[in-house]
Amino acid sequence: MAGSTFGERLKMTTFGESHGEAVGVIVEGVTPGVELDEAYIQVQMDRRKPGQSSVTTPRKEYDKIRIVSGIFEGRTTGTPLCILLNNTDMRPSAYDDIKSMYRPGHADFTYDKKYGIRDYRGSGRASGRETAGRVAAGAVARKLLERRGVSVVAYTTEIGGIQCDVFDESAIERNAVRACDPAAAERMIELIERLSAEGDSCGGIVECRIRGVAPGLGEPVFDKLDAELAKAMLSIGAIKGIEFGAGFQAAAMRGSEHNDQMDASGFLTNNAGGIIGGISTGEEIVFRVAVKPTSSISAPQRTVDVEGNEREIQTIGRHDPCICPRVVPVIEAMACMVVEDHYKRQAALLDE
Amino acid sequence: MAGSTFGERLKMTTFGESHGEAVGVIVEGVTPGVELDEAYIQVQMDRRKPGQSSVTTPRKEYDKIRIVSGIFEGRTTGTPLCILLNNTDMRPSAYDDIKSMYRPGHADFTYDKKYGIRDYRGSGRASGRETAGRVAAGAVARKLLERRGVSVVAYTTEIGGIQCDVFDESAIERNAVRACDPAAAERMIELIERLSAEGDSCGGIVECRIRGVAPGLGEPVFDKLDAELAKAMLSIGAIKGIEFGAGFQAAAMRGSEHNDQMDASGFLTNNAGGIIGGISTGEEIVFRVAVKPTSSISAPQRTVDVEGNEREIQTIGRHDPCICPRVVPVIEAMACMVVEDHYKRQAALLDE
Amino acid sequence: MAGSTFGERLKMTTFGESHGEAVGVIVEGVTPGVELDEAYIQVQMDRRKPGQSSVTTPRKEYDKIRIVSGIFEGRTTGTPLCILLNNTDMRPSAYDDIKSMYRPGHADFTYDKKYGIRDYRGSGRASGRETAGRVAAGAVARKLLERRGVSVVAYTTEIGGIQCDVFDESAIERNAVRACDPAAAERMIELIERLSAEGDSCGGIVECRIRGVAPGLGEPVFDKLDAELAKAMLSIGAIKGIEFGAGFQAAAMRGSEHNDQMDASGFLTNNAGGIIGGISTGEEIVFRVAVKPTSSISAPQRTVDVEGNEREIQTIGRHDPCICPRVVPVIEAMACMVVEDHYKRQAALLDE
Amino acid sequence: MAGSTFGERLKMTTFGESHGEAVGVIVEGVTPGVELDEAYIQVQMDRRKPGQSSVTTPRKEYDKIRIVSGIFEGRTTGTPLCILLNNTDMRPSAYDDIKSMYRPGHADFTYDKKYGIRDYRGSGRASGRETAGRVAAGAVARKLLERRGVSVVAYTTEIGGIQCDVFDESAIERNAVRACDPAAAERMIELIERLSAEGDSCGGIVECRIRGVAPGLGEPVFDKLDAELAKAMLSIGAIKGIEFGAGFQAAAMRGSEHNDQMDASGFLTNNAGGIIGGISTGEEIVFRVAVKPTSSISAPQRTVDVEGNEREIQTIGRHDPCICPRVVPVIEAMACMVVEDHYKRQAALLDE
Repeated sequence: MAGSTFGERLKMTTFGESHGEAVGVIVEGVTPGVELDEAYIQVQMDRRKPGQSSVTTPRKEYDKIRIVSGIFEGRTTGTPLCILLNNTDMRPSAYDDIKSMYRPGHADFTYDKKYGIRDYRGSGRASGRETAGRVAAGAVARKLLERRGVSVVAYTTEIGGIQCDVFDESAIERNAVRACDPAAAERMIELIERLSAEGDSCGGIVECRIRGVAPGLGEPVFDKLDAELAKAMLSIGAIKGIEFGAGFQAAAMRGSEHNDQMDASGFLTNNAGGIIGGISTGEEIVFRVAVKPTSSISAPQRTVDVEGNEREIQTIGRHDPCICPRVVPVIEAMACMVVEDHYKRQAALLDE
Repeated sequence: MAGSTFGERLKMTTFGESHGEAVGVIVEGVTPGVELDEAYIQVQMDRRKPGQSSVTTPRKEYDKIRIVSGIFEGRTTGTPLCILLNNTDMRPSAYDDIKSMYRPGHADFTYDKKYGIRDYRGSGRASGRETAGRVAAGAVARKLLERRGVSVVAYTTEIGGIQCDVFDESAIERNAVRACDPAAAERMIELIERLSAEGDSCGGIVECRIRGVAPGLGEPVFDKLDAELAKAMLSIGAIKGIEFGAGFQAAAMRGSEHNDQMDASGFLTNNAGGIIGGISTGEEIVFRVAVKPTSSISAPQRTVDVEGNEREIQTIGRHDPCICPRVVPVIEAMACMVVEDHYKRQAALLDE
Repeated sequence: MAGSTFGERLKMTTFGESHGEAVGVIVEGVTPGVELDEAYIQVQMDRRKPGQSSVTTPRKEYDKIRIVSGIFEGRTTGTPLCILLNNTDMRPSAYDDIKSMYRPGHADFTYDKKYGIRDYRGSGRASGRETAGRVAAGAVARKLLERRGVSVVAYTTEIGGIQCDVFDESAIERNAVRACDPAAAERMIELIERLSAEGDSCGGIVECRIRGVAPGLGEPVFDKLDAELAKAMLSIGAIKGIEFGAGFQAAAMRGSEHNDQMDASGFLTNNAGGIIGGISTGEEIVFRVAVKPTSSISAPQRTVDVEGNEREIQTIGRHDPCICPRVVPVIEAMACMVVEDHYKRQAALLDE
Repeated sequence: MAGSTFGERLKMTTFGESHGEAVGVIVEGVTPGVELDEAYIQVQMDRRKPGQSSVTTPRKEYDKIRIVSGIFEGRTTGTPLCILLNNTDMRPSAYDDIKSMYRPGHADFTYDKKYGIRDYRGSGRASGRETAGRVAAGAVARKLLERRGVSVVAYTTEIGGIQCDVFDESAIERNAVRACDPAAAERMIELIERLSAEGDSCGGIVECRIRGVAPGLGEPVFDKLDAELAKAMLSIGAIKGIEFGAGFQAAAMRGSEHNDQMDASGFLTNNAGGIIGGISTGEEIVFRVAVKPTSSISAPQRTVDVEGNEREIQTIGRHDPCICPRVVPVIEAMACMVVEDHYKRQAALLDE
C-alpha cells in the first residue's frame, strides 16, 4: 500500500497495526527550531485514547508516545520526527471469530479482496488505532499553526438524531460526547448508554472550525484547500460525507442568497465556509462531517465466512458505541496537517 | 501553482485560462495500444459545452478538441496525450467590471489575496472553462475503463429544492437538466427559466453511480478510494459537499441498520455506497455532491473594489443559471480518472 | 508514461513528439508577479535550436515559442505557464527505415519492448526535440534565479578526446562547440567536420557551474541537491555519467587531500563541488557530465528488424555529429529548474 | 525535511538519528503474500554493520532488526512494513568537539546553514547510520526481485588508486574490502591499514551489476531508469559520481564504436550499460560510482567553529578508513528499490 503518506511539504507516514508491537508516525518537513516536547503531543493523544468515559471503549491501550528522532534539546531539528506508541493491550484470542468471518461494516471483506491476505487481529491497518499516529502528527502541526495564530476546534453537533441547539464552545471538553450543547450532550449520552446496553451503536455529525487562517491559502486547480480537507476527512474510516459552509443546503438556495456579499468591513455572510475557488477567504473555515454508526455491535448479524458460507456473527468485544467523541481529535489533527501544509506551499510559491 | 496535476499512475495536468489562446490537458500513464480517436473524446466535450439548451449559457466557445501527441495510427502510444482546445469567443471588454471589483461568490478576492495579481478576464484558472481539459482527460480514462467493464453515470437529483422522485436512467440525456426524473426535470427547467429572468440562479444535487468496479480497489490509509473521489469532486469549483451511500443520513442511523450484512449472494444493502475501509466492495459506488447556485447573477449585489471601497455590482454576462447539467460530465470525468488510476495502482501492488 | 513531470514546487511537464503537430511544456509553481515575456525565453530556445553552425543539424525546425497561458500584462500570474512550439519541418518519409528496423544507440528497441507500439517518426518522445520544452521551462526558472543572484553556465570541456586547457568564459558562446578554450574549440570543430564527412560522430564532456547559490539548499536524505541534479542530468538522453567536484578523481585521493578545510574566509578548496551531505555549501556548484557520441550515423551498422531478422542500417538524415554544443542549454535549463525548486522547498521548510 | 521518502509504488521512508533511541524505515507498496522474515533481512544488515574486519570501524552498534508491522504469519500483508533498529552504542561525549566546530568533509556546516539548529551527536541524519534503514528496505525489494529472477551485486573495483585487474565474483564476499580481485584486495587492505595508522583515509570505486532485468523498464522522459538509479546513488552521502556502461569513456569514443549493434542473438556490445533512452535493454545493467575518502580522519585539519573562529580539529573516533566495503550493500539496496519500483510502475502502465 502506497497510501500511508499524507501531505506535500508537511508530510506524515503512519505505520503499524492495532495488534502488532507498536504503531507510530513519521512527520517530515517540520520547521526547525520550534520548541516541542512529548507532553504537548500527549495532551492530544489523551483526548483520543480509549476509556475516557462510560461512552468510550474500556480498552486500556496506553497511548503514551515516545519521540524517537527529530528533537534536540527541546527543539525540532527539521529532520523527521518519529513518534512511537507501544501496543500493550493485545488480546488476539478475542479475534478468533474475525479470522474466518467478515464483520458487517468492517473492512475485513475488502482487505481480503484487495490483498488476498489479512492480519485479522483487530482490523490491521483499518483499525481506529492507526489514527493515533495521525493525532500525534496533528499535534506537531498544531504547534506550528499556533505560531501563526491559527486554531482548530471540532465538536459533536448531532448524535443518533439528537441535535445541538446552542453553540457553547466552553462545554465541548466538559462532556463525554464533546458536544457544543451541554443539554443535548446529556441526552446523547443517555441514548448511547441505552444503545450500548442493547448491543447497538449510532452515528452523528461533527463540525470543525478553523480560525485565523490568512486569506490566500489553497492551490487551484486540483489541490484546492477544501478538496484536500475533504480527502483528509474521508480518509478517516468512519466518515461518509463532508460539507463546507452552507453545504448541502446550498442545493435549495438562490445565488442571491448564497453569495457572500462584502462591505468595507469584509464578508457579510460565510455561506462558502471560508473557502472560495479553493482558496481561503480569511473567514472562519467551517465544515461538517457525517460519522457512521460504529460497525462493531454485539447484536447478531448475518454475514459469510471466508469460504462463502452464511453465518451469524456477534462482535463481542470492547468498542465505542458512538465514534464521535474520539473522532473529534482525529478530525482536528487532519485539519491541522492540511492547513499547515498549505501555509508551507504558499511560502514556496511566493518565496520572497 | 503546483495544483494543476491530478492522479498518480494515470495523471492529468490542465492548463490555460478561459480567455487566453487555448486551454488543454496533458494525460500521462495511458495504457499503450488502445484504440482512441478525437471523435470519442468529442462526445464528452459536447456534453459539457455551453449553449446546449435554454438553461445553459449561450457563449459559443467551440469545444472542438485536437489531440496533439500520444496517438499514433489510431492507438495510444503510452506517451503523454496532449489535447488542445482553442478559445474562440473572447470578449475581454465584457469583463471591465471585474477588473476592479470582486464579484460575490467568485474567486476574484481570493486569487488577489493569494497571488497579488490576477488575470481578471473570465476568472482565469478559476473559470469553469478549465474543466474542459478534465472532461477530455476523463474521456481517455473512460475508454480504459470500458475495457474493464466499468461504467460511470451522473445525473441531477435535485435543483432549487425540486427533487427527483423516480430514477429513470434513460431520461437523463433527454432533458436539459440531466435529471433522472422527466417530470421533475420539467419543473426544474421552469424554475431555472424563471430565476434566469429574475437575474438569479439556483443550486442542486448531482448523484453519481460507478458500476462494475471489482472489489479490492482503493489504498488505505490516506489514499482511500472515497477520500480520493471526495478530493476529485471538491476540486470542482461549484461543489460544496459530498456524501457516500447513506451519507449524512448515517448520522441518525443505528449500527444494526447501517451495517451492510451479507448472505451467500453478496451484500444485502449498500449503505456504504460501495466502499468500506476505503476499498471497493464490488457493489455500485454511489455518491452525491452539493452544487452551489451559480455565483454570476445579474441582480445587484454589495461588494468592494480592489481598493476596499463599497460598490454595487451586477454581473451582466452569459452564465448558466444552474450549473448542474453541465457539471454532470465533469463529475463523470473526475470519477473515471480516480477509478482508472486505482486500477493501475492495484496492478502495481499485486504485479503478478 | 508517468515520467513527463519534473520538480516538486517548481514543476514542468513536457509533451509532444518530434513529428507531431507541436511540442511544449507546462510550468507550474511559478512565483507570481515576475516580469517575463516570450523574447526572454526565445533567447534560450535559439541556443538549442538546430542549424546554428556547420557542426549542428541543418533541420530547420522553427523554434519560435508561444506562451499560451500564465502571463498577464507582462507578468507571471502564478498559474501554469503553457509554452507551445509548432513542429514545422516534418518529413516522416525520411523515417521509413526506422519503421521496421532498430537503430543502434536509439531507443527504438526499448520503446517497442516497453509499450508494444511505437511512433517511429523521429524517435517520438525519445527525440532530442523533447528537450525544447525543457529549455523553455528552464528559461522561466532562470528568470526566477536572476532575482536571487544565481547564475548557471555550462560549456564543453572535451570532445572526442580533445580537451580544453584553459577556462575562458567569454569564449563559450563565440565558438560553435561552446568550448571554454577557443584554441581547443578549433580543433574540436575540425574533428567533428572530419567525422561528419566519414559518417561518424563523437562524444564529449560538458561542465556546469552554478554560482551564487546560498548555503543550506538541498533536502537530506534522498532529495539531496546533488542527487536531484544527477537525476536531472541523466534524464537527458545522451548523458551517461555525472561527477561533482573532484568526482571520480576522489577515488584515488586521501581524506586529508579531499576534505575541504576552512579558515575564517571560508572554504580553502572545493573538492566537494559546492555540495556536502546533499546541501549547498555556498561555494560554486560544479559538475561534469559525459555525453555519448550521437547515435545517428550514416556509416553502415548491424541491427535487426522488428521481426528479428539481421539487417544493415545506414541512418541517412540530418543529425548533429556531436551533441555537446546543443546539449549545453539543456543542461543549464535542468540545473535552473533543480536549484529554483530547492529554493522554494527551503522557503516551505523555514516559512518565516 | 521532506526528503526522507524514496520511490513511487515501492516506497521507503527512513527515520532516526545515529545517536537517538532508534533508526528505522517504513516500506510501503510491498506485494502482499510474499514469504519474508527477519532472518532474510538480517543477512543484508550484517553485511553493512560496523566491526566486520580490521578495515571497518569497531563501533559495536547492534544492527539487529525488528519487523514491527506488515508481516503476518510469515508473509507480507501489503500494508507498510516498519523495521526498527535500536541504537545501543551511544557515546555522545565523544562528540563534544563537533558541538562547536565544523568537521571538514562533513555536513556540519551545511546542516547549520540549512536548519539553523543541528543535532551534533554523530552527524544526525547525515550519519552513515541512516543507511541501515535503506539496507533493510532494500532487502525487502531484493526478495520481490528474486521472484522475477533479478539479482543485484556490487563490489569494489578500485581503492586509493589500486585497481582490480580481474573480475572474480566468488571473491567478493571473501575479502574485507569486497573487491572482485583477491590479489588487489590484499594490496587494498594493506593500504587502508597503513592510512588508518597515519590517521588518514582513502576513496574508491564501486561497480554494480543488475542481472535478469526484462527489457522495457524505465519511464521516459524524466523518470528514466538510469536517472533514478543516479539519484538513488548520489543520495548516498559518500558518493560523488556515477557512470553507466562506457560512461565517461564515451566522451572519447566514436558513434560507430559506442553504438551497441545487434544481431539475431541480441546486442553485440553493452556500452550503454543496459539502458537506452532511459529504458532497460535486457542486457546487464552496469554502473560505477565514485566513493570519496572518509571525511573523519584523525590527522589535524583547519576549520572554524560556529562563531567563525579559526580552529584546528582532530576527529578522534571510530571510523572506517575506507567506506567502500560497507557502502556495497547500501548501493545494492538502493538499486533493488529502484528496479522493483520500476517493475511496479510498468505493471501499472500495461495493466493487463
